[in-house]
Formats: sequence, structure tokens, C-alpha cells
Amino acid sequence: MTVIGRLVVSCVDGPGIVSRISTFLHRRGANIVQSDQYSTGPAGGRFFLRVEFHLPGRGVGLSELERDFAAEVGPVLGGTFRFRDAAAVTRVAVFVSRYDHCLLDLLWRTRRGELPVEIVQVVSNHPDLAEDVAGFGVPFEHVPVTRATKADAERKQLDLLGGKVDLVVLARYMQILSADFLDRIGVPVINIHHSFLPAFAGAGPYERAKARGVKLIGATAHYATEDLDEGPIIEQDVVRVSHRASVAEFTSKGADIERTVLARAVRWHCQNRVLVDGRTTIVF
Amino acid sequence: MTVIGRLVVSCVDGPGIVSRISTFLHRRGANIVQSDQYSTGPAGGRFFLRVEFHLPGRGVGLSELERDFAAEVGPVLGGTFRFRDAAAVTRVAVFVSRYDHCLLDLLWRTRRGELPVEIVQVVSNHPDLAEDVAGFGVPFEHVPVTRATKADAERKQLDLLGGKVDLVVLARYMQILSADFLDRIGVPVINIHHSFLPAFAGAGPYERAKARGVKLIGATAHYATEDLDEGPIIEQDVVRVSHRASVAEFTSKGADIERTVLARAVRWHCQNRVLVDGRTTIVF
Amino acid sequence: MTVIGRLVVSCVDGPGIVSRISTFLHRRGANIVQSDQYSTGPAGGRFFLRVEFHLPGRGVGLSELERDFAAEVGPVLGGTFRFRDAAAVTRVAVFVSRYDHCLLDLLWRTRRGELPVEIVQVVSNHPDLAEDVAGFGVPFEHVPVTRATKADAERKQLDLLGGKVDLVVLARYMQILSADFLDRIGVPVINIHHSFLPAFAGAGPYERAKARGVKLIGATAHYATEDLDEGPIIEQDVVRVSHRASVAEFTSKGADIERTVLARAVRWHCQNRVLVDGRTTIVF
Amino acid sequence: MTVIGRLVVSCVDGPGIVSRISTFLHRRGANIVQSDQYSTGPAGGRFFLRVEFHLPGRGVGLSELERDFAAEVGPVLGGTFRFRDAAAVTRVAVFVSRYDHCLLDLLWRTRRGELPVEIVQVVSNHPDLAEDVAGFGVPFEHVPVTRATKADAERKQLDLLGGKVDLVVLARYMQILSADFLDRIGVPVINIHHSFLPAFAGAGPYERAKARGVKLIGATAHYATEDLDEGPIIEQDVVRVSHRASVAEFTSKGADIERTVLARAVRWHCQNRVLVDGRTTIVF
Repeated sequence: MTVIGRLVVSCVDGPGIVSRISTFLHRRGANIVQSDQYSTGPAGGRFFLRVEFHLPGRGVGLSELERDFAAEVGPVLGGTFRFRDAAAVTRVAVFVSRYDHCLLDLLWRTRRGELPVEIVQVVSNHPDLAEDVAGFGVPFEHVPVTRATKADAERKQLDLLGGKVDLVVLARYMQILSADFLDRIGVPVINIHHSFLPAFAGAGPYERAKARGVKLIGATAHYATEDLDEGPIIEQDVVRVSHRASVAEFTSKGADIERTVLARAVRWHCQNRVLVDGRTTIVF
Repeated sequence: MTVIGRLVVSCVDGPGIVSRISTFLHRRGANIVQSDQYSTGPAGGRFFLRVEFHLPGRGVGLSELERDFAAEVGPVLGGTFRFRDAAAVTRVAVFVSRYDHCLLDLLWRTRRGELPVEIVQVVSNHPDLAEDVAGFGVPFEHVPVTRATKADAERKQLDLLGGKVDLVVLARYMQILSADFLDRIGVPVINIHHSFLPAFAGAGPYERAKARGVKLIGATAHYATEDLDEGPIIEQDVVRVSHRASVAEFTSKGADIERTVLARAVRWHCQNRVLVDGRTTIVF
Repeated sequence: MTVIGRLVVSCVDGPGIVSRISTFLHRRGANIVQSDQYSTGPAGGRFFLRVEFHLPGRGVGLSELERDFAAEVGPVLGGTFRFRDAAAVTRVAVFVSRYDHCLLDLLWRTRRGELPVEIVQVVSNHPDLAEDVAGFGVPFEHVPVTRATKADAERKQLDLLGGKVDLVVLARYMQILSADFLDRIGVPVINIHHSFLPAFAGAGPYERAKARGVKLIGATAHYATEDLDEGPIIEQDVVRVSHRASVAEFTSKGADIERTVLARAVRWHCQNRVLVDGRTTIVF
Repeated sequence: MTVIGRLVVSCVDGPGIVSRISTFLHRRGANIVQSDQYSTGPAGGRFFLRVEFHLPGRGVGLSELERDFAAEVGPVLGGTFRFRDAAAVTRVAVFVSRYDHCLLDLLWRTRRGELPVEIVQVVSNHPDLAEDVAGFGVPFEHVPVTRATKADAERKQLDLLGGKVDLVVLARYMQILSADFLDRIGVPVINIHHSFLPAFAGAGPYERAKARGVKLIGATAHYATEDLDEGPIIEQDVVRVSHRASVAEFTSKGADIERTVLARAVRWHCQNRVLVDGRTTIVF
């Protein structure tokens, strides 16, 4: 059976990288079906590559391929590389507060097969959405958070998720995760912010957008870092509003953008399309 | 001959305003063809109205209508009102530095009859665009501006324009006009800013957008006030960019958005569609 | 308690209509909070009006207002008019085949209070979605349809719905309703078509869009008439696609547009914002 | 001095193509800076590749590289390939009738350095735009066309352009070019059509869009073929319209979309980003 594999590389640019990698893959019987690359500058810039290839069943396996690559090509490239089976499913934990739209959208798309993920846990600081989540057969854990109990809550969350997830998604989770939590969880965290960042970072973006009289409102999916709403942006989109729309209508219109932007970001991340380059992302 | 007139009203909301105004117009033989209204709250909120009407030639004229309205309806409404002949042409001065795209777009659209304006003067702190402007038969005045000569330059600009224009358009004019100038010029000033405000207010928005890694860039047309990039927003739009695009490509893609956003804002302003409500606008 | 009422008028244009209607409402104590109008031409064109007003509880009721309007104003206007309580809930039947995204989106938005409707019945020619619908506490009826049983099926559907619904929504119902059914059901029917009409009317729009190599795909919500995909368009939207996207990806991307376009059309219809003008619509 | 070169390949897909090409380039000292590929299916599908590379001045030249590629790699690939110097300027003839917006936009962008082209000739069946074109220092030829003189006119156009242009752009040229002309001119022809194809192919698209009541209007740039408005689509875009907009406003709003869509298509074509795949295009 043919395995579909992906190779993602990030290193210093220099001559012959594509030739070396494609020749390595070709000699091992891997047939490249898609390839994207980007360089911030040919002489000493940063080089990013994502290759999708077919590996016929009778030849080497993906782990053998990776081992050989590490021995033969990796040292020459420097930088980092990663092989991945396209059929692998990303294990996801979703954090949510009371707004249901982003969470339910992720659960639905997952059920429909639109996202290559398994949602293995939902965590909320409110009990409200327990029943909805149960309907999808996904474990739901209510972990209340107050200023006083935040450290305890995060410890509880880490116990619950440690080593069991590949990605955390903050689907309108109205709490700020500590730098310590982000460090310990050890996997990427994607957040959806309900504004067109860097406009209206922080609390109350729809109220502030209404007060400022903007003509478009937006949503931004980004990797969470310890600096609130400052992490690398994965995807953004906007929708037109008029003076007629109230803050409630901003919220309702914005909800549609939030969920589509978040779903795109999660899909692209799980397809290994998103490479971080300092404060920004490459999306192949 | 039928005159097409417009009435724009801004007052405190209360019962019977529409009835009073529409009945006044009907009794004077004015036939309403378009009417837009907006209220921030029916009890004591602010009320905004824009009416377009046909006035058959054999009856009262527009100035007579305005005089009667001022006597009969105005005092009851409180607030402000304004009649205008739809055929009237707005006299515009355009300020520009070196970038030609917004200026040339306005000149072209005016020539094509897309904008109900006459561009009566172009003012620039650089001589570069003199020839282009001459090709359209529009006077061009080079008024150099340095930190030391700014006050003099503004005095010269005021002498040039005083009483001769109804609107000033800053079409990528890379100078900040003083509060004193804005006060003395006595007509609205529309500025185009090359970002999606409030993101990237101030200098170098495309450079900062690139550094932040946003996935959309935008442009904002707003009324200039003494607070830089803080005036009421008239129109905004965005265009998608990827990690591949350089700052030069942001600038080139953004230029297309800037000129369409500015042209829309100027057209709507001259059609009396834009009403200021504190820090925001109503666009009918 | 204040009632929020709406008045929708469609008649031949002529002088004094707005004055007459607004004066009637003002004298009955109705305070206009929103008003939209459109005329296809001031002399003998078609005139459309939608007014939203507040009716304080101590005065006349909505039905009394309607009765008086019918007596005093209606005959002068000619045309049609309709009063409606903004708090009234539209009873909706949703027809669906196997695709769940439009149906579930409507059920969700209804639960969240985003749509002023009660979904009173789901009808499907397949049993697949019964369980999903049950989860929302909505009756589900499986009415199989074959070429031979179509007339019987439609009779069964009419029996089920007759007099119990105000609107039928075809949420990706892959059957064509007969002219006879549309006539007998006696309420508006909104259909979502998965293309940017009039492009790709009929079957297989995503396949045909892929074959034609379009760079944007779209969705159209329209009133169903006996001419397939030819009814008045309520709303449309598009999303960008590239050569890379397969028909499956067109289908998945398109599904997001379908459900938002359909939800907007249903909301606007139920808010009495959509007025039919021959083959087209006015959307206030 | 470093030459920036491009290689575009179109052939049957099979194993090892990328490896072979990238190794060839690497060994000749060409450093790949951008690479895009697409395959319609790994086993026997069509394979498309566009590579941008730097060629340091001290090594082989571009023509030498092409000759060696033709000898060593070409025969193995089958299909077609093409080398091009990124600094080469595309010689363009623009055909136009009376509408000036697309023509002037191309002239402007060219002057500003936004398009890698030289406009060497403007041809029109009307004399109206002669003066505008003269202002840009570009030759203008008035070639009247009537039903009776069409063959003569095309002969005259071919005499004028034969061998002197690399691309013909129909910038709202309201005449249909014969299959014979398209064959003889021997270079690609890009047309801008003022609708979202395949909707409203043929004459009067804005009138028909208004009559049909669409909520978005669009423009399509495509390669002209002998089947009117049926050639491979390069780029499309749309803009929202409401029931309020007249056909004149459709035309004016549409003009903005036409010129941006056409400019993108011309730029991408001249950057060798557009590869034809049967009735569709790959746009890298």
C-alpha cells in the first residue's frame, strides 16, 4: 500500500538544497507530488520547504526514510526537518468558555471528516457546554478558574492532557494561559482572537470596533505565546459592517468569521502547512 | 426643469420627525425619491436623515424651500440641516507628495464623470507631479515644506485655497497638517491612510504589516482631525497577502486599495452620504 | 409594553406616499425607528417601503393599526401592504437530502437565537439525518421520493405541512419540487444553490466549475419558482479557489459559503427585509 | 552580474522529474530561489513546474543552459520547456474601442514599473483615445472595423504587429477577432470580459446582470480562443452590488474590477506564472 508522506524542512538557504533533497527522495523510491518552498534571501536567508510524496508499499518505510535522511542529508542542511505520515491524525484538546460557535464548528467538521484530527478532550472553565460535547462522544472536563485558583487549574489541565495531545486549540477561551503553562504543555497552541490583529488586541474588541466606527470587522488565528495576541498569525479574515450594526450584530457576524478562520488555521496546521518564521508564519 | 435636491438632517431623535419633514416636502411639491435614516436610540438618541427629492421647475426653488424649512421645521427639530442641489459640483483641492496613484485616479475619475467634483487646485511639497497634473488642465502649486518653514507653507496654502474650495483631499500627502490649518481652512479634509486603521496608524504601515506577518493589508479613508489617523472613518477595504509578498509588493497591492477606497469616500462625501456622529460616520 | 412593528409596502410610485404613511403612523403614536425605501422611477415606477416602528403599549394595538391603515391609507396607495409584529416567530419547514451542513447550521443558529424562526419540521428523502435532528427536539419525517412516487411524496409533504408553516427552506434538497407543489404549499420557498447563479444552474455545479477552471466558486439563495434556479436571488457570495483544489475541496469550501448565504437569506426574509420585484429582489 | 532566470516545464508526470531538473540546475551553478509545481495525478497525469533561479555571472549563460537542458534533460521529460530571463520585457499590443479605463490603467502601471512590459502599439477601431495614448509616447493606430471591412482590418493589424509583439491584450475591444487572426498573430491574446464567466458570456453583461438581479458583479481575464468567452480563465474577481445600483453604476463599479483583474492577468502572464492546461490554467 502506498504511504503518503510529508517532509518539512527549515534551514539556512544555500545552493543545492532542493537538488539534494529531491535526489535523496527519488533514490529511495519516493515520488514527489507536491512541493512548496520559500526563501527569505538566497544567500544566507532562511529556507523553508514542504514536500508531499508517495512511498510505494514494497520499498522503504517512512521511519527508515527519516533515519536515512537524518544520517545522509540532515547534517549537511543544518536546521530542522520532520517527516510525517499524511494519514496520521492530530490529537487535539479544545479549551472553551461559554461561546459555543467555535467549539461546535470544530466538532462538526471533525465528524464530517473535514479536519484530520481527533478531538480527545474539551476543557472549559464553565460547565455550560458539557451536554453539547457529550453528544459528540468527546470527554468534557470542567476546570473552574479564578484569579486565586489559576495555578491549580493549570496544573489540573496539564495532568489531564500531558503527553496525550499534539495540539491545543483555544476556541474562545476567555482566560490567559500563563507562560509556564505554554512551556509545560509542550505542543503548539492555536488561539482565535475576535479582531483583525494588531487592531483591538486584548479585551472587548467588538465594543471597541463599534466605538471606533470601523467598516470591517475581523478574526485572527495565531499561535499563542506568552505575549497576549502577539503570536505568529496563521490566518485572518474580515466581514463588512455598517453604522447600523449594533455590538450584538458585530458579535454575531464576527462569530461566522471566527469559526471559519479557526477551522482553516487548524486544518493547515495539521496538514503541516504552517511553518513559523520568527514572529510570522509561512503558510504553504 | 426638475431640480434634484438633497436634505440632510442631524438632530435629537423624537416622535414625528419623518412625518413633519416628509409632509413639509410634499406640500411644497417635492417628491421624495430616496430616503435613509438612522437613529442611535428612539428616545433621546441622535437622529440622522438624508432625503433625495425631485422639485418640478414650475414650483418653489431650492433656496426658497430651504428658507421656509428654516422658518417652519428647523426650530422644532433643533440640530442641523442642510439643503443641496444634487447638480452642484464640489470644488476640491488635492494635496499630494510623490506617490501619484491616488492623485491620478482622482483626476481620471473626475474627467470620466465618475465623481461630482471639480479639482480646482493640486498642492504638493514636491515638484515631481507637475507635468501629470498639467495634462489634466488643473493648476499645480509646489509648496515645499520643511520643519522650519511649515507655518509659512501652511499660510501660503491657506492663501491659495481660502474660500475657493469645499473639500480638501490628502491623496498620500506625507505631511501632517496642523490643528490650526484644519481650523482655518474651514472645510472637511479627507485623508487616505495606507493601513486598516486602527492597526498601523502613523508612519511605515506596510513595513510594520510585513514585520507583523498579517495576512490582509488595507486602506482607510477618514476625515482628518488634529489627532493623526484618529478621525471618523468613512471607508475601508483590504486585500489578501501571503508570506511571499515583499514590502514592495505590499505597497503595490495596497496602492490599488488606497485609490478605490479614497475614490469611494470622496464620491460619498460629495453626494452628501456621509454624516459625522462623534468619532464615527453614518454612510447612507 | 412597547410593541415593535413593521410595515412593508409595495405599490406604484407617486407624490406624497412617504408623507401620508409617516403622518398616519405618527398620529397613531407609532414612532418610526428605521425606514428604507426604493423606487424604480418616481413617475409611475414601482415603490417599495419597509418601516420599523415602536408602538407604546398604552395606545392602539398592531391589528387595530392595520385595520385603520387598510381603511384610510391602503385604498389611496393601491398595491399591497403588510403589518407584522417584529417579535413574531416564523414557522419553518426544512427540506434536506443527505448533506447535513446547511440543515445543522440552521438548527444551531436557531438554538442560539440568531434567527427569528421556529423550525417545526424537517423533511428528508433519506433517513440519514434523523438522529441529528432529534438531538434538537425537532420532528423529522422521512419521505422517500422516486420518479414513480413523486406525486405521492409531494401529497404526503403537503399533508404534513399544510397551514403549519410560514416558510419552506430547501437546505440542499436534491429533488425538484413540482409547480403544483409550490402552488399548493402557499408560502415562500427559499432554495440554496451551490453556484454563483446564473453560472452553473442545474446539476453538478462544482464538477462543472472545476472543469471550466473558474477562480472563484459561489452559492446563491433564491426563492424557488417552477423554473429551476431561475427564481429571484436573495443573496450570493463567493470564495477563491486555485487550480490545486479538487472537486472535493470545492465542495468543502463551498459548503461554508452555502450555509452562511442561506442563513443570511432566511434571516432577512424573516425580518421582512426581502421584497420581490418581478424576477429580482429588493433587500432592505 | 547575476542573471535571474526562469524555467517553465509542462510534461507527463513520472518519478524523478524534480530530482533530475534540480540536479541539472545545481550542477550548472544555478541556485533555485522559487519553485512551484502541480500534478494532475502522479501516475501519468500532467506535470507543471515553474522554477526561478539565480545564475552567477561568472558561469554559464542562460542560452547555454537552455541548450544543455535541451540535450540532456529535455528528451527524458518529453513535453515542453522554456527558459526565460526575468529581466526580459514583454512587448505588448493593446486593442481597445472607446472605454478608456483598462487601457489607461495598463499604460499607467507600465510607466510606474508595475508591469514588466513595454506597450509598443495601441490599436483601436475608434479614434477617441489617440490623444491619451500620445501622452504616454506610445504609437496609436486607428483601424476602423465594419462587417464589410473586417478581413481587411485584420490584415492591416497583422501587418502592423507581425513579429513585433509577444502578447496582445484586448482591453475592452468590442470586436470579435477571427480564428484566422488568432492563428496568424502567433502570440497569446488576453481578453477582459466584464462578467463573472461563465455567467453572462457575450454582449451586454451588465444589463443582463441587472435584469437577473445578481448581488455580485464580476470580471474575467482569459486567453482568447476562437470560441467567444470560452478560453482558459486566468483571473476573476467580483464586487457587491445592491438593488439600488443602476446599470450605469454596475458599469462604473465593474470598471474598477475589470482593470485590476486585467492588470493581474497581464502581470502573471509576463512573469511566466500562467500555464495552460486544456481549458483551464495553472497560476503559480
